[in-house]
Amino acid sequence: MTTAPSADDLYAFLSTTRSIRRITDAPVSDEVLNRIMQAAVWAPSGGNRQPWRIIAVRDRTIKERIGRLYSAEWDKYVEYNVSKFEGHPPAVVAQVREAYTGGTRLAETLADVPVLAMFIHDPSALYVTDADLGRHPVVGGASLYPAVQNFLLAARAEGLGGVLTTLVCNRETELRDILKFPTGWGVHAMVPIGYPRGNHGPLTRASMEEMTSIDQWRD
Amino acid sequence: MTTAPSADDLYAFLSTTRSIRRITDAPVSDEVLNRIMQAAVWAPSGGNRQPWRIIAVRDRTIKERIGRLYSAEWDKYVEYNVSKFEGHPPAVVAQVREAYTGGTRLAETLADVPVLAMFIHDPSALYVTDADLGRHPVVGGASLYPAVQNFLLAARAEGLGGVLTTLVCNRETELRDILKFPTGWGVHAMVPIGYPRGNHGPLTRASMEEMTSIDQWRD
Repeated sequence: MTTAPSADDLYAFLSTTRSIRRITDAPVSDEVLNRIMQAAVWAPSGGNRQPWRIIAVRDRTIKERIGRLYSAEWDKYVEYNVSKFEGHPPAVVAQVREAYTGGTRLAETLADVPVLAMFIHDPSALYVTDADLGRHPVVGGASLYPAVQNFLLAARAEGLGGVLTTLVCNRETELRDILKFPTGWGVHAMVPIGYPRGNHGPLTRASMEEMTSIDQWRD
Repeated sequence: MTTAPSADDLYAFLSTTRSIRRITDAPVSDEVLNRIMQAAVWAPSGGNRQPWRIIAVRDRTIKERIGRLYSAEWDKYVEYNVSKFEGHPPAVVAQVREAYTGGTRLAETLADVPVLAMFIHDPSALYVTDADLGRHPVVGGASLYPAVQNFLLAARAEGLGGVLTTLVCNRETELRDILKFPTGWGVHAMVPIGYPRGNHGPLTRASMEEMTSIDQWRD
């Protein structure tokens, strides 16, 4: 029996796609990986230019090299966040640090994750309408992150888990050496994926009412 | 009978969510709009900070004001793209211009679209790891566009259509006057949605094989 796809099924996936940092080393087949990458390719982009690529890293040596870069950035990130609590009681500081344990474990064991999906892009193909507004532009991401989200949703539907990370993006030059992508291209995400140790969902999010308003801003 | 959600259903939606620019003025109920906005809220963001909001504009006067800004930006965009074909035969130039007809019609009739979802964000809550790489940063978008993609997918599942646009983002100051969002916040997308005149899908995209490679870049 063929039935129309169900909106409820979509919502079941959207509402349980959480960031998964505890990933087993169980292999991900080419078939599954290809379906997930195909889902990314379906995403929209400005002028339908699709100015991005995925390099799906399975090779252990390459994963280890990326892992070293990521780990260094992760440690800096944790220290930066912990430093904001300077002067607070040691128990508080310890608790803040504790909150990063899952991420630290992921960083330290990144090479054990079956696939590191490296998302790269061609900045010259982006039409950045918020380039001159006195803040960091974000609009280039409109052609890039819908595909990353499709990738994460498809991974969830296949029973896999992953997490959108961006800390390693500023190690672009070294990543270019490792991954051999063209000069001028940038890295906009690293998504480690594999079969999760824990469960999918539920999510912790602000309520829809807090996040939205009608016609104008509402405090 | 309760069954597990089906990956095939997810793929059915992902593979048929195309940009819809021909939108009827048939009303969108609050229930449907709320489900779509809830889907956006489920998206991930850096540190789960959810540094964005949706202002869903239904008021005709406000839609008209936004429409005037958008139309002016759209016309500039078309002229910019057409100008690249200067010196080509007039038939070619006419064909290029023709390709923008759907977008021009949307721009001219924007106030007739039932809902303009204005996506705004707080730049101070973004951790922009690619800020100093000598190109326009995109990483701020990692916390913003997954939600926009969830919104578009949910709209598709509800039988609605829309399109991710960013041209009006550089009219931030005027949009702040109209929408009353806080100083410092930016606009990262405008998504007009409603019931489509045409059909969903199929998509025109590069193949998965062209868009991906294993371990390293492949020309």
